[in-house]
Amino acid sequence: MKGKVYLVGAGPGDPDLLTVRALRLLQTADAVLYDDLVAPEILRLIAATAQLHNVGKRCGKKKIQQEEINFLMIALADSGLNVVRLKSGDPLIFGRVGEEIEALCKAAIEYEIVPGVTSAFGAAAAAQIPLTHRRTSSALVFLTAHPAPGNPDDDWNKLAVSGATLVIYMPGPNYAATSSRLKAAGLADDTPCAVISRATTTQQQGFRTKVGQLSQAPQLPAPTLLVVGDVVRLSNSLLNQTEAMPNNEFAIPVARFADFPANPEEESIL
Amino acid sequence: MKGKVYLVGAGPGDPDLLTVRALRLLQTADAVLYDDLVAPEILRLIAATAQLHNVGKRCGKKKIQQEEINFLMIALADSGLNVVRLKSGDPLIFGRVGEEIEALCKAAIEYEIVPGVTSAFGAAAAAQIPLTHRRTSSALVFLTAHPAPGNPDDDWNKLAVSGATLVIYMPGPNYAATSSRLKAAGLADDTPCAVISRATTTQQQGFRTKVGQLSQAPQLPAPTLLVVGDVVRLSNSLLNQTEAMPNNEFAIPVARFADFPANPEEESIL
Repeated sequence: MKGKVYLVGAGPGDPDLLTVRALRLLQTADAVLYDDLVAPEILRLIAATAQLHNVGKRCGKKKIQQEEINFLMIALADSGLNVVRLKSGDPLIFGRVGEEIEALCKAAIEYEIVPGVTSAFGAAAAAQIPLTHRRTSSALVFLTAHPAPGNPDDDWNKLAVSGATLVIYMPGPNYAATSSRLKAAGLADDTPCAVISRATTTQQQGFRTKVGQLSQAPQLPAPTLLVVGDVVRLSNSLLNQTEAMPNNEFAIPVARFADFPANPEEESIL
Repeated sequence: MKGKVYLVGAGPGDPDLLTVRALRLLQTADAVLYDDLVAPEILRLIAATAQLHNVGKRCGKKKIQQEEINFLMIALADSGLNVVRLKSGDPLIFGRVGEEIEALCKAAIEYEIVPGVTSAFGAAAAAQIPLTHRRTSSALVFLTAHPAPGNPDDDWNKLAVSGATLVIYMPGPNYAATSSRLKAAGLADDTPCAVISRATTTQQQGFRTKVGQLSQAPQLPAPTLLVVGDVVRLSNSLLNQTEAMPNNEFAIPVARFADFPANPEEESIL
């Protein structure tokens, strides 16, 4: 009998942000195929008897091709194993899961999708940024800085000036290029934005700046997320009753927001 | 000593889609304030000793004002209780959590945000729609059909024609109005869309149609979500190797997609 494939969201990083269902599947899987972005603390929860396969494609340098992932996943299920295909965040966005589903259908392998907490929600929770707000933003846009070939850059033009909060996944280390692209898409220099690195893990860090000054910001370790929009400003007004945080520290690995100086150009937020 | 408030995402409905952290907090909370949209199966997981407060605001008919929710939440924490403020999906979108955070800050109550699986991801997982796809859509937009006063309708115009997948939260029962609004925003009549009702619960249902024909579609019970964009089409091509499903059945409460007839005007997807 063939096994089944579970396409499972691992959440943003903190193992406690796995869903109950994801945790149970990891503890009972025969084999797990995971990406580089999945936190080691989560991998430790996998049953000791399970086969573990790192199928990460590191930052464009493809260690392993998508076709090889599909092949391995199908071969394991064909041999009767129950397979968890573990993806960071939620499996249905920015993860090429569509191609994996196509391959599973072609091979007539049963599968199930288990949704997860996407990194944007983990980052916003850590940084305490309401992603929509009745007075500020009534829409939310998820983008990636690495569009696939054929998906034109000018999508950004409509999305950026829509008034929606933007969350850019995988903005990459070139903050100057991202800043230029956002400005070219029509955003004002003084639009607030926040870079959040490794949110919900013990190494989480973040800072807040403005689109026009993003290029001068310090580099934070990948994976990062960039949140752009007026809601980023709220984190300050929302939290100015809490304890003070020194200025000019960009990488404070604490789990909570804290107070900000009145109008610094860049501000630590985590 | 004052208690702490946890702003917790309850996920899309299935209790197994709670995060591990959310489940633990529900089992240990002294008091829980919950919305109408939170599933009864989830409420059953709350500690028997906890105070339970339904603070739902049913479909605009405000049973309870936002200010009353804030007041109650703060009064409970002030009296030393640990309070879970439970919101369906993720707490940071479309939930007025910004206003609750402002109130907590003013009252100097410690709080923490626990992210959750948003309803859109639950619905997409149930309906097996990849929300982004390398060949089809590289961005994802979350909108609500009930914009707050001051947030102009013409946001939709930029967002709808951006090429991104749209997910409309709370589209409401007036499908004709939603269809008109999408068409006025520039979407073609034949843009695929799917209505998904009570996703991830035992009552989940859904159907697929096109923006131009949405007004003739059957009403599904709230809460519903509307997914609009070419990715909705993929569900068909992705799943056409599985078992057949009869045509013209709009409300089939099964947990998985199934095959569709070749080109029906409306198709059951769940």
